Amino acid sequence: MSTQNVLVEQTAPLVLKQPDQLQVAILGFGTVGRSVARILSEGRVPRLELAYVFNRNVEEKRVSWTAASVHWTQSIDEVLESDADVVIEAIGGVEPAKQWVTALLQSGRSVVTANKQLIARYGPELSRIAHQHGCQLLFGASVAGGVPIITALEQGLAGDEIQSVCGILNGTCNYILSRVEEGQSFAVALQQAQELGFAEADPTDDIAGYDTRAKLVILARVALHAELSLNEISCTPISSVAPVDFEYASELGCTIRQIGHVELNDDRCLAAVEPMVVRKESPLARARGCENVVLSEGKFGGITAFSGAGAGGNATAVAVISDLLALTREASAPIHRRSRVLEVSADCVAPYYLRFVVKDRPGIVASIAAILASFEINVDAVFQKPGHAKEKLPFVITVEPCSNAKVQAAMEQVSQCEFLVEPPLRLRIFGH
Amino acid sequence: MSTQNVLVEQTAPLVLKQPDQLQVAILGFGTVGRSVARILSEGRVPRLELAYVFNRNVEEKRVSWTAASVHWTQSIDEVLESDADVVIEAIGGVEPAKQWVTALLQSGRSVVTANKQLIARYGPELSRIAHQHGCQLLFGASVAGGVPIITALEQGLAGDEIQSVCGILNGTCNYILSRVEEGQSFAVALQQAQELGFAEADPTDDIAGYDTRAKLVILARVALHAELSLNEISCTPISSVAPVDFEYASELGCTIRQIGHVELNDDRCLAAVEPMVVRKESPLARARGCENVVLSEGKFGGITAFSGAGAGGNATAVAVISDLLALTREASAPIHRRSRVLEVSADCVAPYYLRFVVKDRPGIVASIAAILASFEINVDAVFQKPGHAKEKLPFVITVEPCSNAKVQAAMEQVSQCEFLVEPPLRLRIFGH
Repeated sequence: MSTQNVLVEQTAPLVLKQPDQLQVAILGFGTVGRSVARILSEGRVPRLELAYVFNRNVEEKRVSWTAASVHWTQSIDEVLESDADVVIEAIGGVEPAKQWVTALLQSGRSVVTANKQLIARYGPELSRIAHQHGCQLLFGASVAGGVPIITALEQGLAGDEIQSVCGILNGTCNYILSRVEEGQSFAVALQQAQELGFAEADPTDDIAGYDTRAKLVILARVALHAELSLNEISCTPISSVAPVDFEYASELGCTIRQIGHVELNDDRCLAAVEPMVVRKESPLARARGCENVVLSEGKFGGITAFSGAGAGGNATAVAVISDLLALTREASAPIHRRSRVLEVSADCVAPYYLRFVVKDRPGIVASIAAILASFEINVDAVFQKPGHAKEKLPFVITVEPCSNAKVQAAMEQVSQCEFLVEPPLRLRIFGH
Repeated sequence: MSTQNVLVEQTAPLVLKQPDQLQVAILGFGTVGRSVARILSEGRVPRLELAYVFNRNVEEKRVSWTAASVHWTQSIDEVLESDADVVIEAIGGVEPAKQWVTALLQSGRSVVTANKQLIARYGPELSRIAHQHGCQLLFGASVAGGVPIITALEQGLAGDEIQSVCGILNGTCNYILSRVEEGQSFAVALQQAQELGFAEADPTDDIAGYDTRAKLVILARVALHAELSLNEISCTPISSVAPVDFEYASELGCTIRQIGHVELNDDRCLAAVEPMVVRKESPLARARGCENVVLSEGKFGGITAFSGAGAGGNATAVAVISDLLALTREASAPIHRRSRVLEVSADCVAPYYLRFVVKDRPGIVASIAAILASFEINVDAVFQKPGHAKEKLPFVITVEPCSNAKVQAAMEQVSQCEFLVEPPLRLRIFGH
């Protein structure tokens, strides 16, 4: 609730339009757009009427189960000039979404979006435009699909001072890591995910952590009132995690998950997206398939956990329709976000899991231990499971809590050792 | 979103007061009242000013850390006649809370309450009064303490059609069952809970399920739009659960928890509060101490889980302050609840865990199996762990899904068998 460095200013009361019936337009008739259209077409949602569907080559998309009154178009100008009260942006990507959302808000139409990249990058700017034009920009669907985490953080937990948020926010990574846990190599697991449609042809956004990073920026904004620069958040891809890492993690009573985490730390935010070692009892360890999990920690209320369907047309559509219903609430008013711009650092203090693959000879553990000692890093335990070839022997050292920067520097030095067969893997052991 | 049998009607737009600063009064300076006062006194919550504290024998309650401007009183009339904009009801119980809340709402003051019994019994009536007088009644703190379940169900999941809600809503029962799981008898576990202040001197409300039942009525109202009569919901006390039941449940990969559950079933609601056998992987199995867990299942979004601190002054205060902040949102409007009155039934179809304690002799399992067969109940498995005295031998039969009524009738017949040393225990095996 700090009010320093106000970014989005508190403003005078608005008089909002309160139509009896909202005319709804959908931009983009993909998975989410279709699911929203289907729920609206069932006619069980009062005060919302599907009026327009926009898509490129719209004739290929047209379906028979919407009301005959729905106007199908491939002209964005038709939507911009229409009587739609609210527009659902379900096209994704930054452009042309940004340009169109800007024009819609400037014309006084509220926009409901599931577009995490757009909101992560331009949320405050677009919210200001909405406010200036007496309409709203809602984005409950942009993080964690059907899990109502935005409402929960902005409203249900508004009375707390949230200190940190972390979570599993990418179903693709979760699926791939589950397969690797079962013994598949990363490459095979990825290929399977692609064949099943869980991963894109170009999976970089998911694997590298960019998808989770965008969601993390949004969570930091609504929960910590912190405005982070997307590019300052360090992302570590999950592609170096191998089945052997799950075997060693299991020895520690743990598993491995892609975690996005952000934490207030004086005038900075500690934030990163990375594969981490998490205890099996943690709610984070239990996410399956496309399930998303978010944990928030508040000064007063302690840890609160949220989990549910993080992706899929129907789950995301629930979030979109919940936002539409918020717009129909008479005189409903936007939340005012007061965010301060914070520097991002990944330099937390934590215990680490370090995995080495070496061409075995006597003295290797001693060499690595000496390098760690020279950085004042204390070894906690050494694990070496039998059954691996001497030529390519994996083993693990866990170290006591120390700064990320120190471990990173130590690992750079270890990387130069001639006995290493592949670069060392460094995973944070997460406390939640 | 059914609109049949409208109970609380959709109404015309309101023009709400939008004061710059809300004057807050607290009724009841117990654990919750104190925590709210402390957070407000830290001055980090904008637009909320603690102005009045009411308590019997107020001089014994007065503290030094609130602002000097706070007026302490033991006269409810002083609060009723004051300039307080919003009143926090933290006295608990039905009367005089109901009378005072009614008078406050009639005077146009919004009320924020943590009082589950009041809201379960009189929520719709009091909401109508609030609406008639242009103010609001908010009760986010009445269920699950700091877990923002009311906001999540009413707003974040508004776009779904919730079909069922279940949860662990009573920390006292959860603590006691955890102790029984560790091998304590119920009586000893209860005594310990009382000594530690986790259970009341008269623990009936918790143990018998009445506390959870009140919360379940509120959850049914906000999630299922169903208005249930408190007294129609069957409650089974947890007092018959013994350490041996945890041993047998563990054989099934399960544990035992007090669960409140409610489910739409055509024009009825299936609802009950009872100790149930739950799988160890279920989020319900993992609640510790005063942690609360709520699962909702929606037609579109599937299962969403919420967990966190279900009790304690600070966690409950977070919910109260979140409600206060909702009142400060300019032009914020109340949610309109459209509920239909539904009949309650406990007659679900489910697998059951049946535990018998017998004076052993040949043919007992055959006798019980014959009775079950006569009710067309199929035995799934029989468990008998070694190490128990023949004179008081516990064993367990699990049965395939069948109606509650059938199992109950069969158990009544078994109860008459001369070999039984104590009444049989019947626990539903829960699917979530």
